[in-house]
Amino acid sequence: MCIPGCQEVVARRLSRRGVFKGVAGMATLAGFSALPAGGAFAAPVSFSKVVDLTHVLDPSFPTYFGKPQLEIRQLFSFDKDGFNLNEWVVNEHTGTHLDTPFHFSKDGPSADALPIETLVVPLAVIDIREKAGADPDYRITAGDITAWEAANGPLPAGAAVALNSGWEAHLGTDRFRNADANGTLHFPGFHVDVAPVLAQKGVAGVVVDTLSLDYGASKDFAFHYKWLGSGHWGVEAAANLSALPAKGATLVVGGPKIKGASGGLSRVLALV
Amino acid sequence: MCIPGCQEVVARRLSRRGVFKGVAGMATLAGFSALPAGGAFAAPVSFSKVVDLTHVLDPSFPTYFGKPQLEIRQLFSFDKDGFNLNEWVVNEHTGTHLDTPFHFSKDGPSADALPIETLVVPLAVIDIREKAGADPDYRITAGDITAWEAANGPLPAGAAVALNSGWEAHLGTDRFRNADANGTLHFPGFHVDVAPVLAQKGVAGVVVDTLSLDYGASKDFAFHYKWLGSGHWGVEAAANLSALPAKGATLVVGGPKIKGASGGLSRVLALV
Repeated sequence: MCIPGCQEVVARRLSRRGVFKGVAGMATLAGFSALPAGGAFAAPVSFSKVVDLTHVLDPSFPTYFGKPQLEIRQLFSFDKDGFNLNEWVVNEHTGTHLDTPFHFSKDGPSADALPIETLVVPLAVIDIREKAGADPDYRITAGDITAWEAANGPLPAGAAVALNSGWEAHLGTDRFRNADANGTLHFPGFHVDVAPVLAQKGVAGVVVDTLSLDYGASKDFAFHYKWLGSGHWGVEAAANLSALPAKGATLVVGGPKIKGASGGLSRVLALV
Repeated sequence: MCIPGCQEVVARRLSRRGVFKGVAGMATLAGFSALPAGGAFAAPVSFSKVVDLTHVLDPSFPTYFGKPQLEIRQLFSFDKDGFNLNEWVVNEHTGTHLDTPFHFSKDGPSADALPIETLVVPLAVIDIREKAGADPDYRITAGDITAWEAANGPLPAGAAVALNSGWEAHLGTDRFRNADANGTLHFPGFHVDVAPVLAQKGVAGVVVDTLSLDYGASKDFAFHYKWLGSGHWGVEAAANLSALPAKGATLVVGGPKIKGASGGLSRVLALV
């Protein structure tokens, strides 16, 4: 049942830009930065409430490719069997989920290989709601990072950076995917040039409230390749980012610990 | 592919004891206690390290019914397609996972309906390694709870109680399921009489390092019915419980937020 036609779409998109060659070269060139381990909590972390950053997932949840990516099969029911139990057929990139380095690299860390220390990290939230409202193709720039740091101080070591575009408000409407007549999506994301800036600052991962780390109109997944391909992770389709402070929260990415997974549905939350 | 024969096994087990009728009665009788919400963190929580309580999951991970419950299908590969992506066919009760009230009740809360406040809670760890080593059929009793409280003070409001039986040491060997010649499993668990004791103390959930909240030899899932059926949750097959203090850790159950799920693979961790 899963994403029929999506291989064709991606292959067409990528071959159109000759991305395959470039990617292979980049992976070889960049290698994988050592993931930061343990360093995030030099001092104790304190919190007094928990904010759930995870959307409820059902088979109708929107997907990048526009086809359902979750099937729920009832195997047992309480009335008939005395207990309830389902199995799922689920694509690794569905709902609020983790993107691992392995998703866009030949041999980067998969979900089971990301140490938990790199998934519980300080969270910086960059508010681009106004810009994204004016321009759905807006891509976060190095200038947005600089502006955040000017207001909040340097990004903490091992942090995650979340893009709060306000796109969650469109969930349940066509505006969430925002496909034009040609099928091109229009929602904000990270500009490829921001990847080395964040990497240089020791950022571990990024979070978006849309269906892709790249902006929707991307034809080449440039940020995915650059960011994940250099040993970092991402979270897509996060919820409730507007409930968080610009700094001071701790992100918990409850990603699946499945051997060889390129990502997967996750319980994502913030300790505030 | 999933757990062939398991319906037959359960039906046989349950009908042998006439459990169906009793269960229906119990669910009607008990109703569902209101889940505690928000009350766990009256004071700020502090931590300085994270302990991963989640096992790596692959298709060979042992299951209660002895058949594989995870299939990983590669949909795209980096070499061929420019990125890696799989889908999973997975039973909701596989690997380190959540049991919701809905798993053993007609209409208790499913995974999407458990507020995050009830999944991030103070954790009490009860060490029964010596008892379980001497008797694999050991069931934790009200006396074990009393002994823990005598040493550590009252169980905190909204807490989770973990049974550290040391059973993790048997993972990778037949001793983990520990089936006898008749197919009966032998590993420790919670005694049904402990359920009302824990409920009365306001405990939200329980954690085991084995394949079932009930002890392996249970023929009627008595603890499951009593505990889950009264609006509480459980975690099965937790890892690393021996790395935790008896009290003072905060448990984070990163359960799946899937509509109508009876449970599911989770990232479970402790903040210490």
